[in-house]
Amino acid sequence: MMPDTPLLDTVKFPADTRAFDIAQLKQLAQEVRAETIDAVSVTGGHLGAGLGVVELTTALHHVFETPKDILIWDVGHQCYPHKILTGRRDRIRTLRQGGGLSGFTKRSESEYDPFGAAHASTSISAALGFAAARDQKGEKNRVVAVIGDGSMSAGMAYEAMNNAAEATSGQLMVILNDNDMSIAPPVGGMSAYLAGLVSGGAYQNVRRLGKSVAQHLPRPFRKAAKKAEEYARGMVTGGTFFEELGFYYVGPIDGHDMDNLVPILKKAAAIEDRPVLVHVVTQKGKGYTHAESSADKLHAVVKFDVVSGKQAKAISNTPSYTKVFGTELIKHARIDPSIVAITAAMPSGTGLDLFGQAFPERTYDVGIAEQHAVTFAAGLAADGMKPVCAIYSTFLQRGYDQVVHDVAIQSLPVRFAMDRAGLVGSDGATHAGSFDIGFMGALPGMVLMAAADEAELAAMISTSLAIDDRPSAFRYPRGDGVGVEIPELAAPLEIGKGRIVREGTSVAILSLGTRLQESLKAADMLAAKGVSATVADARFAKPLDADMILRLAREHEALITVEEGAMGGFGAFVLQLLAEKGALDGGLKIRTLNLPDVFQDQDAPMAMYAQAGLNAEHIAAAALQSLGVSASQAVRA
Amino acid sequence: MMPDTPLLDTVKFPADTRAFDIAQLKQLAQEVRAETIDAVSVTGGHLGAGLGVVELTTALHHVFETPKDILIWDVGHQCYPHKILTGRRDRIRTLRQGGGLSGFTKRSESEYDPFGAAHASTSISAALGFAAARDQKGEKNRVVAVIGDGSMSAGMAYEAMNNAAEATSGQLMVILNDNDMSIAPPVGGMSAYLAGLVSGGAYQNVRRLGKSVAQHLPRPFRKAAKKAEEYARGMVTGGTFFEELGFYYVGPIDGHDMDNLVPILKKAAAIEDRPVLVHVVTQKGKGYTHAESSADKLHAVVKFDVVSGKQAKAISNTPSYTKVFGTELIKHARIDPSIVAITAAMPSGTGLDLFGQAFPERTYDVGIAEQHAVTFAAGLAADGMKPVCAIYSTFLQRGYDQVVHDVAIQSLPVRFAMDRAGLVGSDGATHAGSFDIGFMGALPGMVLMAAADEAELAAMISTSLAIDDRPSAFRYPRGDGVGVEIPELAAPLEIGKGRIVREGTSVAILSLGTRLQESLKAADMLAAKGVSATVADARFAKPLDADMILRLAREHEALITVEEGAMGGFGAFVLQLLAEKGALDGGLKIRTLNLPDVFQDQDAPMAMYAQAGLNAEHIAAAALQSLGVSASQAVRA
Repeated sequence: MMPDTPLLDTVKFPADTRAFDIAQLKQLAQEVRAETIDAVSVTGGHLGAGLGVVELTTALHHVFETPKDILIWDVGHQCYPHKILTGRRDRIRTLRQGGGLSGFTKRSESEYDPFGAAHASTSISAALGFAAARDQKGEKNRVVAVIGDGSMSAGMAYEAMNNAAEATSGQLMVILNDNDMSIAPPVGGMSAYLAGLVSGGAYQNVRRLGKSVAQHLPRPFRKAAKKAEEYARGMVTGGTFFEELGFYYVGPIDGHDMDNLVPILKKAAAIEDRPVLVHVVTQKGKGYTHAESSADKLHAVVKFDVVSGKQAKAISNTPSYTKVFGTELIKHARIDPSIVAITAAMPSGTGLDLFGQAFPERTYDVGIAEQHAVTFAAGLAADGMKPVCAIYSTFLQRGYDQVVHDVAIQSLPVRFAMDRAGLVGSDGATHAGSFDIGFMGALPGMVLMAAADEAELAAMISTSLAIDDRPSAFRYPRGDGVGVEIPELAAPLEIGKGRIVREGTSVAILSLGTRLQESLKAADMLAAKGVSATVADARFAKPLDADMILRLAREHEALITVEEGAMGGFGAFVLQLLAEKGALDGGLKIRTLNLPDVFQDQDAPMAMYAQAGLNAEHIAAAALQSLGVSASQAVRA
Repeated sequence: MMPDTPLLDTVKFPADTRAFDIAQLKQLAQEVRAETIDAVSVTGGHLGAGLGVVELTTALHHVFETPKDILIWDVGHQCYPHKILTGRRDRIRTLRQGGGLSGFTKRSESEYDPFGAAHASTSISAALGFAAARDQKGEKNRVVAVIGDGSMSAGMAYEAMNNAAEATSGQLMVILNDNDMSIAPPVGGMSAYLAGLVSGGAYQNVRRLGKSVAQHLPRPFRKAAKKAEEYARGMVTGGTFFEELGFYYVGPIDGHDMDNLVPILKKAAAIEDRPVLVHVVTQKGKGYTHAESSADKLHAVVKFDVVSGKQAKAISNTPSYTKVFGTELIKHARIDPSIVAITAAMPSGTGLDLFGQAFPERTYDVGIAEQHAVTFAAGLAADGMKPVCAIYSTFLQRGYDQVVHDVAIQSLPVRFAMDRAGLVGSDGATHAGSFDIGFMGALPGMVLMAAADEAELAAMISTSLAIDDRPSAFRYPRGDGVGVEIPELAAPLEIGKGRIVREGTSVAILSLGTRLQESLKAADMLAAKGVSATVADARFAKPLDADMILRLAREHEALITVEEGAMGGFGAFVLQLLAEKGALDGGLKIRTLNLPDVFQDQDAPMAMYAQAGLNAEHIAAAALQSLGVSASQAVRA
């Protein structure tokens, strides 16, 4: 049953809230909260973060003249209430679906999303760019970035703060949304510092005062507002960290207390002589019992029942690749005390939560800090440990220079576990792991593997741990394995050796990683057409199995490479090898199937593979086309 | 004439200094300084930074048990005195030469270089890795990182500091070498904060006290040392920024005052309960008049005369690509007020010093902060400015995720000027711009160009500025142009169109960027062998000129691609295009010449190209080999 939202029903755009009084804003916030819970119960997605900023979102759109004023949400996990209030309520139950609203902010979706996000910690840099552009143009709009305390552990947030007072001479507001919780509990010195500010006397006193003020509500608001201003001024009691970087610090203030929030935001918005940081304390999952009481504050959920809070059960019987990684690594670590694991604020996402339970002293969560994670791992490797750096493919882009400069050039045996390699479904383009084969495979000395199933992943973990003279990396997809058995302790693979999975005569399908099953299906389709296909699993994108690849080229009329990655990756490496060896001189009908040269929007995984042209029928069609047989025949097959 | 160095002559390794008293350490430092100046006068290289840390280097190797204790120099610009003291004095006059010592720290060179460097701001992360490894192994060695104030503007230094107190429970020392000067004067809030600490009363008092103590020298040292300890304790007067991140802060102290430096380092080295940051103030170029009085403190020099300080003149008559970039951008900016320029602490290295003089308000130096630089530029672009982000190819690796996530996915028209693309001579592997064609070219929507000469660079700047619906990038090499004329204002190129430079019949040489001149020479060599060669300049690595490339493939027996970049780049893209179009089906003798799959050590540029196999004779040989003619014949030709 849809929630009752009489006031929200009158709000199409933020301008409709500008004349609201505090009581109305409070009511609106509650209705937005109910709508958010209901929408996510239908679509699944990120819940806890949005619930924590319902009041803040409502207050910001009331105080600032969005979209003329620029409002940038960091990461975007928390933007569902923002979407509800900015003309997208009618589509809010299409969140994260194919053709629906993105689960993050997105420029192409709305003028109220001036800068898209999904990776953490970009908002201050982007906001500073808008502020500088405004200054250049002599305009007067305001710029606000909202960033979580977890995102503050990333270096780029610091880089931006360090540059703020110099890069703009006008207004810039950074709202630190401090919920003491990013995806996982936050780590690091900054986190401890913020906790200190919040637990300090000033904030506690303000909370008490806020309560006493609230007792006099609903009127007179003007007086309460005036009081709140005084508190705000009085609350400048901490924050020297930010002041030392050139910010005016206001806070900490209660992000759910509209009586204080609105006047303080108005006051802070008037500061134009230097950047201001408003430290707002919120509670992730606020206002929904099941979220508040959950350990992860219902950070990300599948469809659920609003009343009971029960989430729809996953129907898979096979473990996820992520879990296989965590489990396998534990097996090795029991035998080898030199194995340590590193995550950049993604313990559960990477499966290192399991490892951390088994070996808390050998698990390092460095925060949202991929640059540091990689070089920290390099230091560990240089001193004889076996570091396994588990970072999503897309986030490893953040540490690329460190992979090149600190790991590869020094040939240090850091092991990179690249989860979420390839397409990722409902998280969309920002989270796709599209580029790692190219950017890792180009590095001299790197060993780069891709797992075709969960047993292969287990073998690649063993392989990587056995490589002690150079870096190695293995990629594996989001989602569940294919259901094959995993041995007690997988044996390492021979480096640079692929395997023939099915012998044929006419066409060779050379798969790297995830599309092996589809390649085998394609071979069946081809067989039905009377075309005999060999199917090989390359296993290694680097070093390539030159013997096997040259043999495939020699013994087949056509060669189709298949990979779940962008151009310039595995297929490109194979082509360069074949060219170098003269294996193309006499003609080879070769096609390299890879992700298309577009950023694919979110959709169901199957739909995304279809769009990418990486399903069995596409592989078979490419083979037939190369042989001169009509592709449409194959797709029908 | 070599300097007189009687005490240094007795020092082969740091252990030889452990019994030295303060007077001896002072003398040793002076001799190391003289030796450093003399060596760099012969080799050229980085001078100012090393001179600033002569006392610090001497004191550190005296106080710590290197190499058992781990000493990591950030960047490595300042490591020449360290090399002199750690068994490499006999080769110090081979610095930055082919086969000689690296200009940076390097693991393969010495056990006293436990972690190599060259890019900034990695040292704290690496040191933390060593500290964590030590903790894991239950060992007791100490770990020290020395990092400049300029490097502190980088996010990864912050990420590491944020993680330090959690990742090690034992000793870790970070020495902040504060010379108020990185390569250029430092920028940002952190810099202002450090300046405040140094100008504060505490440091000034200590300097005065230090002087009065010095009057009692050379004896009694014990008393002086004891006093210094007291000062050190008393000097914990600032540094809340670092304390808030969990560090124990000591300083600021005078880094040239051995009487204070040694006892304070000893005292600080004994702190084992939490990480300690020792704030040392030094003077870049210290002790060499010509360096002290130079604006850049002789950061990097060519060979020079020690007495006069006069550097050998460059003999080139053509402007550097860097200068052409700066000059051309100014021309456009005079016409178009929306053009703004961004540098990450490299104004002179990128030629933006010129732009900054012409348009100070439209130039942003964001510090050593490539991540922020890219997203800041994206914000500027999103609000209608035309940002040109000038970052060396190798340093753009630091902002790769931001290029993907903030620029390319949003299709924002940020222009990337990628200087130092390809091989870079004496700076070696760490500074080579090897990978940008692959990692930028894989991104959907990116326009990627490479300049064959300085007029082409000018045209590509025009082209990039004209592209307003998506990102673009142009790469150009270190060094001087080839001497062609540059038009008053270069016209934009047609996007995705190459050019035929020389018409032939048998072989097509398709060059991207810098090796066009060598490709033309190769065509001459081939002509002498009776082989007619077409030479084309692709101009665009993305989008490819498919028409031209398919025609080259159709009309020639062989096709040789040439690029100054790693595998998985331009040649790979060409191959994937040809495969997709079936242009390889009937046979094409294609070879893709690119940088070899190794990290090439520093050498003279000509030697590096020879090693890379990218000179005219290699191109000609590849063509002949593909045609079935012996390669050795061509090399002799």
